[in-house]
Amino acid sequence: MTLRVDAARLHGRIAELASIGDTGDGGNCRLALTDDDKAGRDLLVTWMRDLGLRIDIDAIGNITGTWPADATEPPVMCGSHIDTVRTGGRYDGNLGVLAGLEVIETVITQGVVLARPLCVGIFTDEEGSRFAPDMLGSLVFVGGMAVEEALDITDRDGLVLGDELARIGYAGPLPCPRATPHAYVELHVEQGPVLESTGTTIGAVTGIQGISWQEITITGQPNHAGTTPMHLRRDAGLVAAQIAVAARELTDTSSGPNVATVGRLDLHPDLVNVVAGRAILTLDMRDIDDAVLAAAEEHMAIICAELAADEQVTIETRSLARFEPVAFDEDMVRLVEDVAIIHGHSVMHLPSGAGHDAQMLARVCPSGMVFVPSVGGISHNPAEYTREEHVEAGANVLLELMVRLAE
Amino acid sequence: MTLRVDAARLHGRIAELASIGDTGDGGNCRLALTDDDKAGRDLLVTWMRDLGLRIDIDAIGNITGTWPADATEPPVMCGSHIDTVRTGGRYDGNLGVLAGLEVIETVITQGVVLARPLCVGIFTDEEGSRFAPDMLGSLVFVGGMAVEEALDITDRDGLVLGDELARIGYAGPLPCPRATPHAYVELHVEQGPVLESTGTTIGAVTGIQGISWQEITITGQPNHAGTTPMHLRRDAGLVAAQIAVAARELTDTSSGPNVATVGRLDLHPDLVNVVAGRAILTLDMRDIDDAVLAAAEEHMAIICAELAADEQVTIETRSLARFEPVAFDEDMVRLVEDVAIIHGHSVMHLPSGAGHDAQMLARVCPSGMVFVPSVGGISHNPAEYTREEHVEAGANVLLELMVRLAE
Repeated sequence: MTLRVDAARLHGRIAELASIGDTGDGGNCRLALTDDDKAGRDLLVTWMRDLGLRIDIDAIGNITGTWPADATEPPVMCGSHIDTVRTGGRYDGNLGVLAGLEVIETVITQGVVLARPLCVGIFTDEEGSRFAPDMLGSLVFVGGMAVEEALDITDRDGLVLGDELARIGYAGPLPCPRATPHAYVELHVEQGPVLESTGTTIGAVTGIQGISWQEITITGQPNHAGTTPMHLRRDAGLVAAQIAVAARELTDTSSGPNVATVGRLDLHPDLVNVVAGRAILTLDMRDIDDAVLAAAEEHMAIICAELAADEQVTIETRSLARFEPVAFDEDMVRLVEDVAIIHGHSVMHLPSGAGHDAQMLARVCPSGMVFVPSVGGISHNPAEYTREEHVEAGANVLLELMVRLAE
Repeated sequence: MTLRVDAARLHGRIAELASIGDTGDGGNCRLALTDDDKAGRDLLVTWMRDLGLRIDIDAIGNITGTWPADATEPPVMCGSHIDTVRTGGRYDGNLGVLAGLEVIETVITQGVVLARPLCVGIFTDEEGSRFAPDMLGSLVFVGGMAVEEALDITDRDGLVLGDELARIGYAGPLPCPRATPHAYVELHVEQGPVLESTGTTIGAVTGIQGISWQEITITGQPNHAGTTPMHLRRDAGLVAAQIAVAARELTDTSSGPNVATVGRLDLHPDLVNVVAGRAILTLDMRDIDDAVLAAAEEHMAIICAELAADEQVTIETRSLARFEPVAFDEDMVRLVEDVAIIHGHSVMHLPSGAGHDAQMLARVCPSGMVFVPSVGGISHNPAEYTREEHVEAGANVLLELMVRLAE
């Protein structure tokens, strides 16, 4: 058996979906529950309906397309999301959904007989760019958050998620949490440079790094930059810089976290000739080992306490997000590796640095992920690109995974 | 002779001027050439006229009040400015002008006979908050910039300085550069914590620190904070932090500059989970020795080059301002010290960390400055405050200085 997807059809759908919310620079903007998100959903639902799938929409707006339409057994599920960040690309999320649709179409058109139903899911608001937290739809899907709570979330303009969901016509009748699938597998672009830099085609994702997001507020004393001697300063900006440097140094140690990033840093009053009286920065640390992540948080807390004493500032730390690492089912990781090898692809185990819907599904059923390379490691950017042969390779690995899981 | 100013009258005028552009929180906002600046000028001109001074307004809007009104000899001049920063206090600049007026009123009412005329000046746009550069009026007064060039300067709304000057009625007939005074002395609040922290009443200012303002732009690569391994990053934010820390470390060395400040620091895209692709910071370094300042600039350029190579970023540096240090006339510094001692005040020599109109006058005549303590070292802030007895002490030192210089 050499069951293969129709790569041309898949690429055509990637391009057609990307025409909705096209930012004109190769990128996509389909923020969750906007008119463009609705248009994207409508297109997917049309394709699913044309294929004869059963379309179910739940109370948080997740869409599932199931084959056969009258199936009642737990399906082998795949999926991802079609919402994007404001400066998104055309592969992040979309590839997992469209490849899943392509897998089911291939199974249908090739007349493959399977023991279990197949299902492709489109999860609401994975990016969290408009409504926090991210991975919201899949979180509610598995019962990690009550749907009533999720529907009350507001965006920065004060618009309510439930209202926006109803407005675009995707407040569905199915309750959440949804019925548990037999297994879940998600194809996704890596969004990082590891596969490309090692010349590997397929990533067998071992899990998702734990995430610690902290907001650190430093309060010192605004002072004239010319008239205030160094030893009398309480320079919040300097301390912010010292924290950023310390976080980097921590990653250089063997016991430090995998990555640490100060991505936001705001000084007040932010004037060339005034010592900053206040600084706010964010510290994003991630590791696949929760003990390492916790130790990193403790280390940075000690650094902050020492700097506060040395520089006569106060430092307040607030947790913005804290997710424990997720380890995918070992059998699933091995299966991804085996299928990639059978297909003749180079394959490596790697953790995901980013969060994905699969980590939510992993709470309720055996779950796994397949990564394909991102050129330059670039994502959340109009320049996001995955080579056509890698898209095809990933879709065919997904096809064989789903067929094997459903046999 | 125990000639003394009328402290109550001086404090009354400080309060009355502060009522114009009152920000309601103890502070003042009289940006240069605004309606509030005009109202402040009108009040001062009224007081000068009531005293019988000759009022001269020049082409850049500097106002001088001279006694006797028919004087033709070069006067002993004092003065400062009455424009403020957006969040200004009531002492910065205003004290020098109002104390100068008080000195002349005291001389007149006490019938003191002097060999030379006295003059108090109000210089246009000392703060530079609206029209750059700062100390503009005194710069043009001494011929450091052509008046035609100054009149063409625009504010951030595109309004032209010359138009605004005419609009408020202070485009005067006198040409610039103006006639050179016999000497110039300026009373000013320290705007720093040195006098207060050492328990000193009078500062005999030795000079003005040289200033180097640089804008440093770091260009790296924006990347996903979760998926990009540390060794593949080109993190502009990290490099900005490293530069800020290096500048601080430089001041800790014996050969480093007196002060160094990173007061502005902006990251792009400034998101918690994105490695900054671009960072812009300002570096403000000051020292009384120009060779030290030049060496500091060179040292930081080397640091930047090393960081650019280590972190695979590009770094561009642009000079925003560069002023050489100014040394005040040694006889003038000694005279300030002598008078302070005669008045029974504690006194110390110190350089000014901030720029002042006196540094421009020092280009053309013997010039000096008298500092009085700023509570908490706070300035450019509604909380700016100088104790009443220090205001009085400074005004009386200014009085005796001007009398001695005019005898």
